[in-house]
Amino acid sequence: MSFIKFSGNNQIISFVRNHSDMFPEHSALEVEEISDGNLNYVYRVSDSSGKSLIVKQAPPYIRVIGDGWPLTQDRIRIEQQSLQFTALHCPKIVPEVYHYDSQHCVILMQDIGDHDNLRQLLIDRTELPQIAKQLGNYLAQMMFRSSSMGMESTAHKALVKQSQNPQLCKISEEVYFWDPFCDHERNDVNPLLKPEAEVIWSNQNLKREVAQLKRRFMSDTEALIHGDLHTGSVFATSESCKVIDPEFSFCGPIGFDTGVLFANLLLNYAGQQNLPGDSRERKAYQNWLLLTLGDIWQQFSAQFDSLMTTETLDPSLSDPGYQQWYLQQIWQDSLGYAGVEMTRRTIGIAHVADIMNIEDPELRADSERLSLQIATMLILQRNTLNTPKQLDDAINQLRT
Amino acid sequence: MSFIKFSGNNQIISFVRNHSDMFPEHSALEVEEISDGNLNYVYRVSDSSGKSLIVKQAPPYIRVIGDGWPLTQDRIRIEQQSLQFTALHCPKIVPEVYHYDSQHCVILMQDIGDHDNLRQLLIDRTELPQIAKQLGNYLAQMMFRSSSMGMESTAHKALVKQSQNPQLCKISEEVYFWDPFCDHERNDVNPLLKPEAEVIWSNQNLKREVAQLKRRFMSDTEALIHGDLHTGSVFATSESCKVIDPEFSFCGPIGFDTGVLFANLLLNYAGQQNLPGDSRERKAYQNWLLLTLGDIWQQFSAQFDSLMTTETLDPSLSDPGYQQWYLQQIWQDSLGYAGVEMTRRTIGIAHVADIMNIEDPELRADSERLSLQIATMLILQRNTLNTPKQLDDAINQLRT
Repeated sequence: MSFIKFSGNNQIISFVRNHSDMFPEHSALEVEEISDGNLNYVYRVSDSSGKSLIVKQAPPYIRVIGDGWPLTQDRIRIEQQSLQFTALHCPKIVPEVYHYDSQHCVILMQDIGDHDNLRQLLIDRTELPQIAKQLGNYLAQMMFRSSSMGMESTAHKALVKQSQNPQLCKISEEVYFWDPFCDHERNDVNPLLKPEAEVIWSNQNLKREVAQLKRRFMSDTEALIHGDLHTGSVFATSESCKVIDPEFSFCGPIGFDTGVLFANLLLNYAGQQNLPGDSRERKAYQNWLLLTLGDIWQQFSAQFDSLMTTETLDPSLSDPGYQQWYLQQIWQDSLGYAGVEMTRRTIGIAHVADIMNIEDPELRADSERLSLQIATMLILQRNTLNTPKQLDDAINQLRT
Repeated sequence: MSFIKFSGNNQIISFVRNHSDMFPEHSALEVEEISDGNLNYVYRVSDSSGKSLIVKQAPPYIRVIGDGWPLTQDRIRIEQQSLQFTALHCPKIVPEVYHYDSQHCVILMQDIGDHDNLRQLLIDRTELPQIAKQLGNYLAQMMFRSSSMGMESTAHKALVKQSQNPQLCKISEEVYFWDPFCDHERNDVNPLLKPEAEVIWSNQNLKREVAQLKRRFMSDTEALIHGDLHTGSVFATSESCKVIDPEFSFCGPIGFDTGVLFANLLLNYAGQQNLPGDSRERKAYQNWLLLTLGDIWQQFSAQFDSLMTTETLDPSLSDPGYQQWYLQQIWQDSLGYAGVEMTRRTIGIAHVADIMNIEDPELRADSERLSLQIATMLILQRNTLNTPKQLDDAINQLRT
């Protein structure tokens, strides 16, 4: 079966009517394109009564580039599978999938338009009292349930197989672990930051550590991770939190998800150093960010620990000493992957608004410098910064 | 297609004639069953001129138990695939595959009957001057070529997928990493060794370390390993060496293969403490075993290092500091997995002739005790015994 791209709003409406009974038969439907990420087409379909759903279609190429950069449509199957797995174990955190169509490469799903993007919320210095609990809980459930502690060994291997995502993993292998650590043509470096970038490109210790993290990313099938858990993939209200866009999902190291999430809090932290606004407010928000990072870890680790203690299927993985070591290893991995994400978001191809919104190039460079300092510290000292408290202290020392 | 088990020698001969042109049309063929391992049927088919080949057939159960213990026939596809991969990169070390038939679950392959089993050669205290070079070379080629350093990332993931071997892995997960470290009904413990076994079953540090090794075994897809590289899977003459029976093959930690091989040298070492024969000869042979273990590592690591330096496809894995760390990690893994293999071969379900040939139960217990001492040391001290020399010294201290 070959791919059928929607050629206009009528086709989208007709598809929606055929595969969802959300809308009354003769209601007038509106289609609005809200494609936001780089890869896919996303539409909101709504009627005048306020009902709506999302249509996400994956073309056989990268949307923002076009068919000059082909990309496997298997990513929509991967996304659908990841959403379904999450719905089983942490249903509130994902939009509900109404329908999946492999021929059209389409997912019909719940519209979460009443939620705001977490990256923007952080830029606006919004304190979200529930977010640490929600994300920590989500991470613990997903990671444990999809690991070989939460699944029978052969079932876990079947999950590894059906979650293989080699093309999208290869993109990550390059843009996280290669480009930012050498003078790559894809990099986008603030000219004022060139000296700091060059220090990174010639730091042999850093390259060795990054290669270790890359090796794990390429070969450790620990759990079904999101694979792209930056704050742009998270949406929130004061009560609710949704995680979307798991097309990079695969069975990989747990610390990659926690690390990318931590990194994006810390990128905002670095941005707050120079974003517009009252300096006391910005400092207070930086403290909230560190507190939230610690709370996410606390929530995640407490719940993961409890799941390990009570629900580990394999008795030989039930040893308390092992489980303690295991959590500590996830923490260390998280710091390492956080450092990699911060580096790539500062001098690699894809930057973040938390820092790019700083208009003055000198001030932006100051935040970028702080981001790189934190990043390098996380990668090199991940085995000695043993607790969120130690991490906070080390980061606060860099700020002052 | 359903499985067709050979129901007699005529069917075997007819199959061989249909799928091999080794034998002249009217030659009289003889069939001899030489099934040796536990899982499969193995026949030697020969004519009077001395030509011969091997027919290996995998029934849908464990041969020595019968259809009461079903076992996937996918293992013969796995074996064939592993033999072919090895033939590409280290052709002399495997018997040539003449034909593979998925319906009959049969491999026709080269008869290596002129080689002797390495376990027996070691029991007989045969010094094999080429074996370290041959096995070290084989391990380096296989491990590098099937890793994500030697293969392009997406090709490596395809190999991981097609090499998944969940049923046989599950057997290993249990008999290596669970049974021997608790009072499991499957264990077979020399009554004289019960106190030492109980010490192991209650050693929490050991259980934690074994769980760490098990985790890697279950989730790290580092390279295409043999999965059962004990000395019974190796055959040798003074010039040649063959590795057979890779039905446990899958993409797993490199150190598992090197470790199981080291373990079987050390099991023989422990056996030589009390096997019949001149004590000076036995001691000298123990020294040869340690020397050979070191030589295998030296050969493996030098060649693996050279392959990493000259043929790593991914530039971000080409950092010399990383590669040095990587080799050191394989060494440490090897010691850990060696300790696990020695433990399970001493108090688990499947023992080795190197020790079981000691008829006197007291003397056998003495060797078993030494084996467990070495095993525990390897597991607990794998991160501090940094070189073969340090390992030799530590083992020699236990002997005296």
